[in-house]
Amino acid sequence: MTAHRIAVIPGDGIGQEVVPAGIEALRATADRHGLQLDFEQFDFASAGYWQRHGTMLPPGWEETLRGFDAIYFGAVGWPSVVPDHVSLWGSLLQFRRVFDQYVNLRPCRLMPGVRSPLAGREPGDIDFVVVRENTEGEYSSVGGRIFEGTERETVLQETVMTRIGVDRVLRFAFEQARRRPKRHLTSATKSNGISISMPYWDERVAGMGELFPDVRLDKFHIDALAAQFVLHPDWFDVVVASNLFGDILSDLGPACTGTLGIAPSANINPERDHPSLFEPVHGSAPDIAGQGIANPIGQIWCGSMMLEHLGHPEAAAQLLGAIEDVLAYGPRDAPLTPDLHGTGTTAELGHAIAERV
Amino acid sequence: MTAHRIAVIPGDGIGQEVVPAGIEALRATADRHGLQLDFEQFDFASAGYWQRHGTMLPPGWEETLRGFDAIYFGAVGWPSVVPDHVSLWGSLLQFRRVFDQYVNLRPCRLMPGVRSPLAGREPGDIDFVVVRENTEGEYSSVGGRIFEGTERETVLQETVMTRIGVDRVLRFAFEQARRRPKRHLTSATKSNGISISMPYWDERVAGMGELFPDVRLDKFHIDALAAQFVLHPDWFDVVVASNLFGDILSDLGPACTGTLGIAPSANINPERDHPSLFEPVHGSAPDIAGQGIANPIGQIWCGSMMLEHLGHPEAAAQLLGAIEDVLAYGPRDAPLTPDLHGTGTTAELGHAIAERV
Ligand SMILES: CC(C)[C@H](C(=O)O)[C@@H](O)C(=O)O
Ligand SMILES: CC(C)[C@H](C(=O)O)[C@@H](O)C(=O)O
Repeated sequence: MTAHRIAVIPGDGIGQEVVPAGIEALRATADRHGLQLDFEQFDFASAGYWQRHGTMLPPGWEETLRGFDAIYFGAVGWPSVVPDHVSLWGSLLQFRRVFDQYVNLRPCRLMPGVRSPLAGREPGDIDFVVVRENTEGEYSSVGGRIFEGTERETVLQETVMTRIGVDRVLRFAFEQARRRPKRHLTSATKSNGISISMPYWDERVAGMGELFPDVRLDKFHIDALAAQFVLHPDWFDVVVASNLFGDILSDLGPACTGTLGIAPSANINPERDHPSLFEPVHGSAPDIAGQGIANPIGQIWCGSMMLEHLGHPEAAAQLLGAIEDVLAYGPRDAPLTPDLHGTGTTAELGHAIAERV
Repeated sequence: MTAHRIAVIPGDGIGQEVVPAGIEALRATADRHGLQLDFEQFDFASAGYWQRHGTMLPPGWEETLRGFDAIYFGAVGWPSVVPDHVSLWGSLLQFRRVFDQYVNLRPCRLMPGVRSPLAGREPGDIDFVVVRENTEGEYSSVGGRIFEGTERETVLQETVMTRIGVDRVLRFAFEQARRRPKRHLTSATKSNGISISMPYWDERVAGMGELFPDVRLDKFHIDALAAQFVLHPDWFDVVVASNLFGDILSDLGPACTGTLGIAPSANINPERDHPSLFEPVHGSAPDIAGQGIANPIGQIWCGSMMLEHLGHPEAAAQLLGAIEDVLAYGPRDAPLTPDLHGTGTTAELGHAIAERV
């Protein structure tokens, strides 16, 4: 029996609600496939921890987490207690950076039974994956303020792109595209307006493209690309983007497929020198937290991506299949949550999927 | 008779096709309202000019254009001849910066007769305006490369926000919101991830909000906001955003209202120390340029915004009304262009609107 050690970090808000549903589904899948998943739960990376300790993470967190095969993460952020940039830079963004999870992989797929807000779109019409650079770019945290409190007050924030950082995520994206039937890669840029970093991005894309002549390559400026996600989501297969552009596209894409509640993401260190982290695209959702109605599917789908990453593609596929089956029943025959036009609770929908496994 | 001097710059691609249609509609409107518009056309800010002169603009262009009451602009950019960042930073982005057009006003309205890609949305459901900061922020052109051509290659690009620059566009946005029935302003931020500039933006928004207690204020991170444009476009009234975020939202918004072809924008210097510039949101569209099928409505609607800016609200309203009427006829009864599911040409649709005036 293969045993994997999984660090579980529910975090804030609905993270606390969807993670248990995710674990239930993972346990059911592990049982069926003879896998052993050992979960260990941590309370850090949450506003509660911050209130008690004044930091988001305990000293030595790197060593603690480094011993795990993967991190199963809920959501972090509770702005009424700790400002978002403090909580995020103190936890999630640290994990991505310190564990060099330089690929953030975010599938966008219109699932059976889910209503797209786009007119006339059916399952099969929208099925692409966003490959987001996850460690540098616009999320640099380098910069500062000068002439504070005066009329001259000026704030600088640096975007940092490195050849190593850009090339490695591009290579990953081209390889993803090569593995898919359409072999089509779209690069998100803004080289007409952002005149230093984005032309560099374009150059590296063009250069890498020469090594992948079998991949059809195109590029769109981010403004036009956002528009095309709405007008022609069927045009896309793999989309590669900088940290910020990937962030935007990987919320917009799932919105086009009906709800952010089902979208998963995998923060991957492809070399496996460090644990990878699996978290839904949605956040802590203070507006619905505590009601038990959050959609657990993003969290459960993350579990499927985690199983895939741990080397269990059949188990991963089965869990994803269970999600699809339950969604396909529709809100009348399955306990779908309100964002899916049903009246089910987080726990009920989680059970239904675990049972279907 | 009021006389206004208008500099006309068609630029590249479909700019050459839609500007004449815009002028025809403007002339018709001016005739009906007893206004005198004196148009003077310029060939700079185009790839053709660049090929002949090696620059996008002639020496002394500031002085030349400063004498005009407004600039009526088509589109610039022709990447097969001159890289976009060269053509744009050599023309349009100079105009915005040098003429201190610090507000870019971009209405998004679902018009009668236009099919939204969003399911079940009717005219009236989508009617908001994006107020985009237009001179600083992410479009700084400050930065550079170090260790070029080596493994250590690193590219830096600075985002620059100033108190003056942020506050003046926020004030404009709050004033816009105050003038509309809903009095609702949404700020686009990303202060959870972009940890220096965006928290500053949030601070200034909160501060300015205290001066406008009658305006309902909320904020969304740009990723969630892009998603909400698709899921709940009816939530928005006035949206204020940094240069880059405003760029993205003002392409995404018009996509949600059916086509980028009808979206106008006004690059405004509110103090009127310099001429303001009116240009459609769409670009030069190399893919359809030369076919005579580009939608001229974005350009014509710009004419309406220009008339408003020049102090002729009735004329402006009449021109906009003519656009609405012709759109409402639908593709069977009006020569709508292919993006509007019709078979009309640019010129035919332009005539129809000019006649309707
Ligand atoms: C052409 C480009 C530089 C420009 C911008 O990004 O500002 C355009 O997209 C716009 O929105 O006017
Ligand atoms: C919470 C926030 C910092 C984060 C990001 O911007 O990366 C989130 O939006 C995401 O996409 O994972």
